[in-house]
Amino acid sequence: MADYGLIEAGGTKFVLGIADEARNIHARHQIPTTTPQETLGTAVAWFKDQGLIPEAIGIASFGPLDLDRASPTWGHIPRTPKPHWTGADLVTPFAKAFDCPVAIDTDVNGAALSEYRWGAGVGYQSLLYLTIGTGIGGGFVSGGTLLHGLSHPEMGHIRIARHPQDQNYPGCCPFHGDCFEGLVAGPAIKGRWDASLSDLPEDHPAHAIIAWYIGQAVCTFQAVMEPARIVLGGGVMHTPGLIELVRESATGWANGYFNGDPAEIIVEPVLGDNAGLLGALALVLDEEG
Amino acid sequence: MADYGLIEAGGTKFVLGIADEARNIHARHQIPTTTPQETLGTAVAWFKDQGLIPEAIGIASFGPLDLDRASPTWGHIPRTPKPHWTGADLVTPFAKAFDCPVAIDTDVNGAALSEYRWGAGVGYQSLLYLTIGTGIGGGFVSGGTLLHGLSHPEMGHIRIARHPQDQNYPGCCPFHGDCFEGLVAGPAIKGRWDASLSDLPEDHPAHAIIAWYIGQAVCTFQAVMEPARIVLGGGVMHTPGLIELVRESATGWANGYFNGDPAEIIVEPVLGDNAGLLGALALVLDEEG
Repeated sequence: MADYGLIEAGGTKFVLGIADEARNIHARHQIPTTTPQETLGTAVAWFKDQGLIPEAIGIASFGPLDLDRASPTWGHIPRTPKPHWTGADLVTPFAKAFDCPVAIDTDVNGAALSEYRWGAGVGYQSLLYLTIGTGIGGGFVSGGTLLHGLSHPEMGHIRIARHPQDQNYPGCCPFHGDCFEGLVAGPAIKGRWDASLSDLPEDHPAHAIIAWYIGQAVCTFQAVMEPARIVLGGGVMHTPGLIELVRESATGWANGYFNGDPAEIIVEPVLGDNAGLLGALALVLDEEG
Repeated sequence: MADYGLIEAGGTKFVLGIADEARNIHARHQIPTTTPQETLGTAVAWFKDQGLIPEAIGIASFGPLDLDRASPTWGHIPRTPKPHWTGADLVTPFAKAFDCPVAIDTDVNGAALSEYRWGAGVGYQSLLYLTIGTGIGGGFVSGGTLLHGLSHPEMGHIRIARHPQDQNYPGCCPFHGDCFEGLVAGPAIKGRWDASLSDLPEDHPAHAIIAWYIGQAVCTFQAVMEPARIVLGGGVMHTPGLIELVRESATGWANGYFNGDPAEIIVEPVLGDNAGLLGALALVLDEEG
């Protein structure tokens, strides 16, 4: 079987892996995210040390990313608050070092595609993957195809209505204030209640408020996409009991209108620790057709 | 060239047409929407009178529609407030009478696909079509493929934040109250101000409020899909000056974050009086590959 070089490029660490198309991961390594030159150089060196002769390389990266194949900056990070990484070219160092095709998309699109192919989406027509953690991102797959317009989705930045008991917090999104991410991501929870959701007592109103927002966002995504499965991942979703509250909230917002009952279609991710690398593998296999 | 039977199925009238793949419309006829039996029977009879031997038949219909090919009620209207039409089978009468393939999707998906192929979307990677009139609907095409999940989108039912000067009106959506459609469609405008937007004086605050909502919805659609073109059609959009206000509003909401500048990508529909029939033609040609 062919070997693929896989990269899960995150803001604090890069996870590197070598796998075949049957999803056997032969090697795995983790390096800190420092500067593009150092981190990408270290990644190339590790793959070389492993003797990798890759069929292709798959990258599932933090975003935003330029995904326009016709653009001279395809595979670059156009802008990011992360120091050193604005303008970073994630593709060329690997394409040059290994003289092979490189597939790249966002980490959340990789996760959506891998859950669709091998996880919560098996047997279903479409799947929305939302990660709710330090930021919020989403990816949607229908009939095997990832949703793309001019670029990957930025689903954390949809607008939502404010909860009646949450009128004052301005939101923490530097671009949009109180968009979905600005109200619901980890920093927004800490910004209001000085703790993560899982550290707040079970009867704290934050649980109901955050579930109300996520349920509302689910309603908007159902209205746009009518997904057959909605997978909720990310650190915030690790809060015990939250997914049940979200199912209830979303059911109320939908009011029976959409195809797909939120109580059934909202599920946890199935792929575990290797989700990031499997995302990169799904992207590279998808590109090969 | 082959002939296609085309049906634009609306809530008050059905427009029938015969066209070839080069978009020459050879005949056109209009009948009132009464009961399914009468209206569909009259449509079949008209096509027969024209001597039509169709390659295939395309239907662009009001919704909702069951679009699941594996469903025994594919091509039916599952539920509608319109008397007589709940459970109506739009496909079988034509498939039986003409023994040919039938393609069906919503009128707004037809409009999206025809604008993408022959109108405002020519030369662009993706297109969102929104109709804002008696109701609100949307269709999205990327790389030639219409967005579908379990069914067609119901984009009028996304959630939006309330305008500070519009806090009291409960919204007119029977399912969701103050969703996008419940606040912005024609009946919601009449419900608040007892007039259509175009009948209200230019300096009436309704113009700014409605533009604020539409701009906000555009922001959400950009966050989900990043369309290369956003076409705004429907009766409400005929209000003079409204599209300019929406461009301004959407630019503010986006705050430079998305690919695609709202001031440039928000455009009027290009296809005129034949948009409905061309929608049906786009659907049937699309199905043939």
